Amino acid sequence: VTVSPVDLRNVVAAKRDGKTLAPADIEAFVRAYVRGDASDALVASFLMAALLNGLDDTETLVLTTAMIESGRTVSFDALERPTVDKHSTGGVADGVTLVFAPLAAAMGLAVAKLSGRGLGHTGGTLDKLESIPGLRTDLTPEQIQRQVAEVGCAVAAQTADLVPADGAMYALRDATATVPSVPLIAASIMSKKLAVDTDLILLDVKAGSGAFMKTPEEARGLAAACRRLARDKGRACRVAVTDMSQPLGDSVGNALDIAEAIGILRGETRGRLRDLTVWFAGRASEALLDRAFDEACDLAARALDDGSALERFRAMVRAQGGDPAVADDPSSVLPAAPTVLRLLSDRTGWLASTSAEAIGLAAGTLGAGRARKGDPIDPSVGIVVHPKIGDRLEAGQDIGEIHARDEASAEVAATEVLAALDIAGSRVEAPPMVHEWME
Amino acid sequence: VTVSPVDLRNVVAAKRDGKTLAPADIEAFVRAYVRGDASDALVASFLMAALLNGLDDTETLVLTTAMIESGRTVSFDALERPTVDKHSTGGVADGVTLVFAPLAAAMGLAVAKLSGRGLGHTGGTLDKLESIPGLRTDLTPEQIQRQVAEVGCAVAAQTADLVPADGAMYALRDATATVPSVPLIAASIMSKKLAVDTDLILLDVKAGSGAFMKTPEEARGLAAACRRLARDKGRACRVAVTDMSQPLGDSVGNALDIAEAIGILRGETRGRLRDLTVWFAGRASEALLDRAFDEACDLAARALDDGSALERFRAMVRAQGGDPAVADDPSSVLPAAPTVLRLLSDRTGWLASTSAEAIGLAAGTLGAGRARKGDPIDPSVGIVVHPKIGDRLEAGQDIGEIHARDEASAEVAATEVLAALDIAGSRVEAPPMVHEWME
Repeated sequence: VTVSPVDLRNVVAAKRDGKTLAPADIEAFVRAYVRGDASDALVASFLMAALLNGLDDTETLVLTTAMIESGRTVSFDALERPTVDKHSTGGVADGVTLVFAPLAAAMGLAVAKLSGRGLGHTGGTLDKLESIPGLRTDLTPEQIQRQVAEVGCAVAAQTADLVPADGAMYALRDATATVPSVPLIAASIMSKKLAVDTDLILLDVKAGSGAFMKTPEEARGLAAACRRLARDKGRACRVAVTDMSQPLGDSVGNALDIAEAIGILRGETRGRLRDLTVWFAGRASEALLDRAFDEACDLAARALDDGSALERFRAMVRAQGGDPAVADDPSSVLPAAPTVLRLLSDRTGWLASTSAEAIGLAAGTLGAGRARKGDPIDPSVGIVVHPKIGDRLEAGQDIGEIHARDEASAEVAATEVLAALDIAGSRVEAPPMVHEWME
Repeated sequence: VTVSPVDLRNVVAAKRDGKTLAPADIEAFVRAYVRGDASDALVASFLMAALLNGLDDTETLVLTTAMIESGRTVSFDALERPTVDKHSTGGVADGVTLVFAPLAAAMGLAVAKLSGRGLGHTGGTLDKLESIPGLRTDLTPEQIQRQVAEVGCAVAAQTADLVPADGAMYALRDATATVPSVPLIAASIMSKKLAVDTDLILLDVKAGSGAFMKTPEEARGLAAACRRLARDKGRACRVAVTDMSQPLGDSVGNALDIAEAIGILRGETRGRLRDLTVWFAGRASEALLDRAFDEACDLAARALDDGSALERFRAMVRAQGGDPAVADDPSSVLPAAPTVLRLLSDRTGWLASTSAEAIGLAAGTLGAGRARKGDPIDPSVGIVVHPKIGDRLEAGQDIGEIHARDEASAEVAATEVLAALDIAGSRVEAPPMVHEWME
């Protein structure tokens, strides 16, 4: 079917005028865009019209399906283990995936995590992993398949032929102020999840100041839209809305996040990041291995404490070409920043809130992230902040570290991090870890 | 002032979120676009947001001013005669300008009409004029100035440096389904009128099936927006909302329109096109020469009947390099189509409506217009349909002509034109010529 530019303008005009689009029109539009027959300007105009006038459930489903069909799909049919894809909508110090993949593997599940590289204050999961010397994430589909069968988990770069429509459209949305639309976000996330044939999609929709969705209510709307898409495509999908009113873990950087993940995998580090990872591993095991949730969580905690999850991590690092010694002594293997400044609390009281966004920005200023596609990142720099909301702080107390290229940038970051902490004079409740769970 | 892409995205985001934009933001946006620092995609996204969330009077004024300031402006300070710029929002067989310019010149006014070429079922005013052998419309500002001083009128191509922001933005709106926005249309029209310093802007906002605004109410909204812009810029502007529920004149083509205009200038052809041109000439004379309107209309009619308007037309054609003999014997000078098919009414009754759009489309199919910038047009082809709404028709009555490249295309056009005429069994009222006049 050939579609002339005039027809595509009519599709945009219909959405502009508040009409519901016919499936064939949405399909033609996506196909034309992928082929280069629809200009970025026409698509940007469509995206703004869709953002402002909305897409209903059927339109969103058709858009998502058309995006999936723009590329190849991945199947793990040959695996004996049940497969799970865990995805987070993104937050600060959200290193769940790094721990979840080997932990789920240790529990008898298979995890093939395909990630995009993305932009942000720190690198994405791929960048963090690549701070391990030698480790590669550009695996072929066959390599991923083999590694998942042998090791139980792989974390690799999503190839360009997986949902190419999303890659192009997301970059365009970022450039044209058309990101904040629930149907467009749901289509973007779910097209990539649905293009990989797993037994369970486990979604973590973050809510709070450090996330895209600022309130649990907004996050619930996105969660519901994602679940609906999975249901309509006949796929199992369970969704949690979790708290991002403060950084989840303590480390905001790249090598620092790996070190923190290894601390959890070694059973040494406790806290919210471990708790939430155990929680998701329990949910995956409940859904796919038919275990009671509480029992599954106990098993997950045990796999962290007895070294079996760490062993899967070591095997994954080795399989992907990285130095497996990182699992035993991270500090001797990971790149280190030349300057480490201890962070001391400048006030006494209870931590009432932490601006995850401000801490992310400070890490970005240190060099931990990228503003443009292809920019280099510095894996060694970043921020460690231990206190969580509700914790008691004393002035002068050691509360973390700044890892920087030099003293001057470390001092700037320290000032920014201290300013991001809101200290109250009276006791403060810790926020819930999980706002809602949708089976 | 350097504006980064991020700042421009924030301007789009603000409009997307329903905010009122600061003047500095609108100015920065237009400047960046003209300089090539804002992508077509970002501007298209902005245009859709502005279309759906609106621009208030101040935002529209700031946008219009920024567009004017994107290029040079034209002044006719040296002229002794009062200058008038007459502009129509466009319709089918709307040849008022071709007659108005020499008629107003004959009445002691000066008319420098700068036109764009545009797209459409038939050519624009420039294309029509260029069907006169030798006639050029690419005059320099100095040539225009001199010709207006000597002849009283000139119809020339708008140079690319007059409101360049509009040229680029209009093409983008056309390509991205973001045309139908009253503030954006008003800014586009008025930026070009306000960039030329005349004593009076006379606007003809068309309403009806053959126009962009389908009802007098919609047309009034656009008329009011245009007048407000002129008032805010301290310029005299008077606006008529006139009927376009049927083609205004009888000819839809290029050379055919010139022949019809010459018929009116020779005092031979009567009808709505002559009547509306006289009406506008009367309004211009009333405003600029302090005459009573009725008296001014009488003078205009006389200038058509006594050959003085024709004489100005002849002088204008000669000054622009065309063959002045066209004024005396159009058919011997203008290009003629190889096939002329007489159009006979296929029904008896009263003409209840004429789809101006369908007749325009039929003329386009004959080759009278262009779909893309730079496409060639055939000046000789087109359609002549005499009956107007309310006229009595007899089956077999001669009601016009099809001028075509061959018999086959003439037959197709004849069928389309007859189908565009709605014949009623009882008497029908003629629509008013002018719906509203705003001084």
